[in-house]
Amino acid sequence: MTGSAHATTWSRADSPAAPFEILATATTGPARRGRLRTTHGCVDTPAFMPVATAGTVKGLTPAQLRELGAQIVLANAYHLALRPGVALIRALGGLHRFMGWDGPILTDSGGYQIFSLAALRTVSDEGVAFRSHVDGAALFLTPEAVVQLQIDLGVDIAMVLDECVAGDASRAEAERAARRTLDWARRCARVETAPGQLLFGIVQGAMYPDLRARQAAELVDLGFPGYAVGGLSVGEERNITMTVAAETVAALPVERPRYLMGVGRPEDLIRFVGMGYDLFDCVLPTRNGRNGMFFTSSGPLNIRLARYATDTQAVDAECACYPCRTFARAYLRHLAVSNEMLGAQLASVHNLYFYQQLMREMRAAIEAGDFPAWAATRIARLSTGAQA
Amino acid sequence: MTGSAHATTWSRADSPAAPFEILATATTGPARRGRLRTTHGCVDTPAFMPVATAGTVKGLTPAQLRELGAQIVLANAYHLALRPGVALIRALGGLHRFMGWDGPILTDSGGYQIFSLAALRTVSDEGVAFRSHVDGAALFLTPEAVVQLQIDLGVDIAMVLDECVAGDASRAEAERAARRTLDWARRCARVETAPGQLLFGIVQGAMYPDLRARQAAELVDLGFPGYAVGGLSVGEERNITMTVAAETVAALPVERPRYLMGVGRPEDLIRFVGMGYDLFDCVLPTRNGRNGMFFTSSGPLNIRLARYATDTQAVDAECACYPCRTFARAYLRHLAVSNEMLGAQLASVHNLYFYQQLMREMRAAIEAGDFPAWAATRIARLSTGAQA
Repeated sequence: MTGSAHATTWSRADSPAAPFEILATATTGPARRGRLRTTHGCVDTPAFMPVATAGTVKGLTPAQLRELGAQIVLANAYHLALRPGVALIRALGGLHRFMGWDGPILTDSGGYQIFSLAALRTVSDEGVAFRSHVDGAALFLTPEAVVQLQIDLGVDIAMVLDECVAGDASRAEAERAARRTLDWARRCARVETAPGQLLFGIVQGAMYPDLRARQAAELVDLGFPGYAVGGLSVGEERNITMTVAAETVAALPVERPRYLMGVGRPEDLIRFVGMGYDLFDCVLPTRNGRNGMFFTSSGPLNIRLARYATDTQAVDAECACYPCRTFARAYLRHLAVSNEMLGAQLASVHNLYFYQQLMREMRAAIEAGDFPAWAATRIARLSTGAQA
Repeated sequence: MTGSAHATTWSRADSPAAPFEILATATTGPARRGRLRTTHGCVDTPAFMPVATAGTVKGLTPAQLRELGAQIVLANAYHLALRPGVALIRALGGLHRFMGWDGPILTDSGGYQIFSLAALRTVSDEGVAFRSHVDGAALFLTPEAVVQLQIDLGVDIAMVLDECVAGDASRAEAERAARRTLDWARRCARVETAPGQLLFGIVQGAMYPDLRARQAAELVDLGFPGYAVGGLSVGEERNITMTVAAETVAALPVERPRYLMGVGRPEDLIRFVGMGYDLFDCVLPTRNGRNGMFFTSSGPLNIRLARYATDTQAVDAECACYPCRTFARAYLRHLAVSNEMLGAQLASVHNLYFYQQLMREMRAAIEAGDFPAWAATRIARLSTGAQA
């Protein structure tokens, strides 16, 4: 498979292979180590994408993202369309130049905002009418328009418009959203993307495995170069997330990159990689970081706790990030309780480094052929909570 | 003058020369290029000290401060005493280790807070009773205690406790505060600092030049290794600031470092260097940066203005800082209007770089012997306001 050739000659009508190469698989189980080629560089998978919703990973410069090993970031076409506007970003040379990030970018379409901004939108078969959460302006997004926005942004990976429903959606509601999502995917697939741009399909279906399996099969018939699983971690119980995630990935083609949207905690990522997922994004490292929560190899640590006031240790003795090499917990606690901006920044740097390091370790474990054993040990340690 | 020898053998009782060396003077006027030696390294003067009130320059890591050329930072003993507490910082190895900054640190004493937190304190000849602005706890600061706090923090340069009054203080009020400040300076000078630690005296006297001159003369009799001028930019008119600053510096010994506290805008710093001041600190680069104000070589620029929405230029074409090398004004405006943390960070990085670069240029102009001509040109450009 010659990914770079595909990247320039690929078009939807051919239903081609994605520029994705599987380099190693776990000896037991479906985990795999791969490489996704984009026009802005390669992504080693399994990969975690820091979230840059509005064109910035909150609290970090692009240089810092590079330094901690991020290879791809996720932005949000819906948010950027509202502010500052996609036409503006396009006129300024595209999203990469705008945000100063020359690596790959994936954009979510706005489908998740159908769920998270439910009070501000009306969904019909034609598309979604949003009232802007910024200034109340009206925005009507059709599936075709959403792909066009992402073409105009110049992103490497675009997502189809999907309808995300809550974790407790009824069967009828889930059926209706799934059917609409499939119809929208078909319409998105007819839009010709720019050379090298990949468009990923999204499997919905709420918590109904048979619906998800059917949805996956029909999506695969459309021949996308990559598949995402959306609509998880939207309020359902954790064991249901795990079951649905595992059953859905099994319905997706082995040779395509598989992206589980919007999850999760470190131990969850290990489990999802064990199921065969390749790509992830989540706001936890930065959002929780801003609230003083540090991820560590033995579980989360709330730096605001009084017990850390005199603690001279690094947040995580095993971590090689700049904050862990430089500051004691006592200082990081001082920053957090004083609401100093640097506290949020350092926690975000640490957490994103921690996630990237975890992905590096997962890739190495898959290559070494001992992923399941490694995963069991690592998950056990992450759950000790010795420092929480 | 052998500064490093002084740095290890210096003690107040000998009334010794400060470890300060004048390397070059302007051919016309009192501007000078010097070097101040501390146990944590040298400071090239004229120097600007980024403000790290609570042990952090807001929005920047120590590594970023180094990168933009800062050689010394200013922290505040009063603030650190309230939170997290000086005993704690001492137990953790001192302020340098606590905040991850291995260069020189100067601490202000809390005298300015007598002015800025007037509602929370009661001043007597004995000292100042503060009610903590953090948690309401009582804190009584005597002159001796304030020096001891700074000894315990392990700073390179400590400041005496002074009483700062408002710009419109009456003659009687100014007299009283000046007399008290002098008495406190005498008491501070009797405290033995740690080897290598320098204690600077502070001239007060409100806007009464003769009072300031008398105050300076009496302070100089106490033989401090450096002198600060406090109580300016506290509400008085700008031309008064200039007059008082010029007349006061003339009353201070040429061979000692002279520190003008809490100022100012770029064009002001050039004027104050032209008067013979060596050290400065000011919150403007970071505080105004957080509000979207960028300093540029042709004057301040408010990045929130609509005119920058589509502007592809760097904030300052002449600036070599990371934000100016990486981002267009349109992106920085987007961050500011979206209240993204990165906007505040990048503005702070740029502004502090701009200040450090200005100091570098001033030092070069003094060395080249053409400071007055350079200053006139530079001030004229800074006032064009072409981008404001």
